[in-house]
Amino acid sequence: MSIDERLPFLLQKKHIAYSDTNALYILDRRLYPTYKSYFRCQTVTQIAQALQQMVTQGGGPLQVGLETMRFIATKIHHKEKKNHLTTFIEAAHQLSQARPTNTTLLRTLFEITDKISRWYLCGEIRDSYQDDLPTFVEEIISSYESYFDDVYDKLSDYGSSLIQDGMSILTTCFAEHSFSLAMAKAVEQGKSIEVFVNETRPYLQGSRLSAPSLAELGVRVNVIVDGSAAALMANNLIHLYMTAVDVVAMDGSMANKTGTLPNAIAASYYGIKYYPFAMSPDPNLLTIDHIVIEKRDGSELTTTANVKGYYPAFDVIPPSLVSGYITKNGIVAPEAIAKQFGEPT
Amino acid sequence: MSIDERLPFLLQKKHIAYSDTNALYILDRRLYPTYKSYFRCQTVTQIAQALQQMVTQGGGPLQVGLETMRFIATKIHHKEKKNHLTTFIEAAHQLSQARPTNTTLLRTLFEITDKISRWYLCGEIRDSYQDDLPTFVEEIISSYESYFDDVYDKLSDYGSSLIQDGMSILTTCFAEHSFSLAMAKAVEQGKSIEVFVNETRPYLQGSRLSAPSLAELGVRVNVIVDGSAAALMANNLIHLYMTAVDVVAMDGSMANKTGTLPNAIAASYYGIKYYPFAMSPDPNLLTIDHIVIEKRDGSELTTTANVKGYYPAFDVIPPSLVSGYITKNGIVAPEAIAKQFGEPT
Repeated sequence: MSIDERLPFLLQKKHIAYSDTNALYILDRRLYPTYKSYFRCQTVTQIAQALQQMVTQGGGPLQVGLETMRFIATKIHHKEKKNHLTTFIEAAHQLSQARPTNTTLLRTLFEITDKISRWYLCGEIRDSYQDDLPTFVEEIISSYESYFDDVYDKLSDYGSSLIQDGMSILTTCFAEHSFSLAMAKAVEQGKSIEVFVNETRPYLQGSRLSAPSLAELGVRVNVIVDGSAAALMANNLIHLYMTAVDVVAMDGSMANKTGTLPNAIAASYYGIKYYPFAMSPDPNLLTIDHIVIEKRDGSELTTTANVKGYYPAFDVIPPSLVSGYITKNGIVAPEAIAKQFGEPT
Repeated sequence: MSIDERLPFLLQKKHIAYSDTNALYILDRRLYPTYKSYFRCQTVTQIAQALQQMVTQGGGPLQVGLETMRFIATKIHHKEKKNHLTTFIEAAHQLSQARPTNTTLLRTLFEITDKISRWYLCGEIRDSYQDDLPTFVEEIISSYESYFDDVYDKLSDYGSSLIQDGMSILTTCFAEHSFSLAMAKAVEQGKSIEVFVNETRPYLQGSRLSAPSLAELGVRVNVIVDGSAAALMANNLIHLYMTAVDVVAMDGSMANKTGTLPNAIAASYYGIKYYPFAMSPDPNLLTIDHIVIEKRDGSELTTTANVKGYYPAFDVIPPSLVSGYITKNGIVAPEAIAKQFGEPT
């Protein structure tokens, strides 16, 4: 079974986003699971706006980014022959600015545009593909998709190895591919486990995305309010804390959805290990100070007249609160991140 | 100005609950501030159900309890003359069981029924009131209302004295009378302050009750999601944490709305003081183990098919996380609570 087939509905590539020659369609996570409806974008600007408006989130924008490169290649192919490299580069720039905290999208898209630049620089490449740009781009994108599937597979193997029979695992927001697969693998390994997931305000990704996705994989799951995790820890109901990571800096610090920090502090207070799934630590971010924390509009919170909302969307977690990062190289201590991932791309 | 007049709309006695000979009306906090509508109860069972269903909450049930005693006395007065003491006692029992964690209601109602018992035991008392039970009960209830107003006044004086010019104060849920008055007094004292309040899932008491009430008193207030307080502390945006308390035990531990514990742990982690407003530590609760933590139905959380909710409504906070309790005797260290409040009633 491919990685894609093992994933819940929400995380299968074609369900995150797909495109035809006219438009790119993004599964609207804001409406899931009540509706499985796709948000239609005809331009890169519309795609960037969709990301900004949380049509998809977490790891979703990465797949949307890959699909956007496909979409542009196909659209261009239907137009006149000229150098469209700037179209790709502008798209990479626009999409990666839509949600600035998670830098995997940015790094991946610029690696891809770098590869696409060869098409325009080298006639021999164009000849060898019989001038078929979409096929050339498709090969690049497919290789990235395979690479990420391989990362998810490895991270979920390492993640599931940390889980013992009878454990309850806490998670926040939607930890996506590696976490979901790790839970499914733990169950397949015959371990009796249970997941508690924070609702994750204001968009309730925990209740709406994580919980049904885990249930779909046969994992027992309970939703708790965002403030309840510490009380569960105090009552020995949590044995491990695991989340995704939006970005890891070379000093071993990280950022993830707001609500992660209080749980990490509480986990440390109660002697519970915290292992985030770090698919791609960012070698360009030397310290915590270089992490860009997206501050979203306070009006996204439930407020009333005369009352402002204040909504920093991500928490920064210092290395001292992380037991180890689950990476493609295995479990890596925060202080060893720079050594293992420190070569800038 | 009376204490009642200095309080925001939501906390003025007549807006919490009122009664006539036919029914008792409770302001429905579940709908506030969108609607100012009253929930009508004709029996004590209906009142108890209303409390259970969170029509009012926090300190609301205490005022409803007092009003219920008035309501019963008036209803009885319109009926035949017989010993109705069990009616009062059964009501006290039923109401105090509706929300078991906060014991102030229970203790107050049984003190009151104890006083009412004298009416039935002593013909001279009945004669001196010309057999007018409602007037006798009204005197008792009024004296409790005055006593509580005095407690709120004292607690808010002590609370405001802890606040310095330029401070940002974090609060969770709806800390009601003493906290609201303390913030108003700090502003009156010319201190520039700002309050950050957690939304407080799942009923959003922070967004819907605290925030508009503080704004009404002229206090600058910002709503944040429940998971964001730690991030604000990490960024030096919070200087003090203050909440109400549902119950304080004699070992210096306490219970309050879930979401209080992670903030108390984070406050301790960042060296921020935590002062809860404790209007009536419970001398009958010797240790933390005797605190009854209400576990509400998990279906009150936003869940989907195949997914359960788990919802302990209150957190227990150990004494080590409390800087001091704000009490009618001043600021009392958790370890001194038993000495100051340890005489069982």
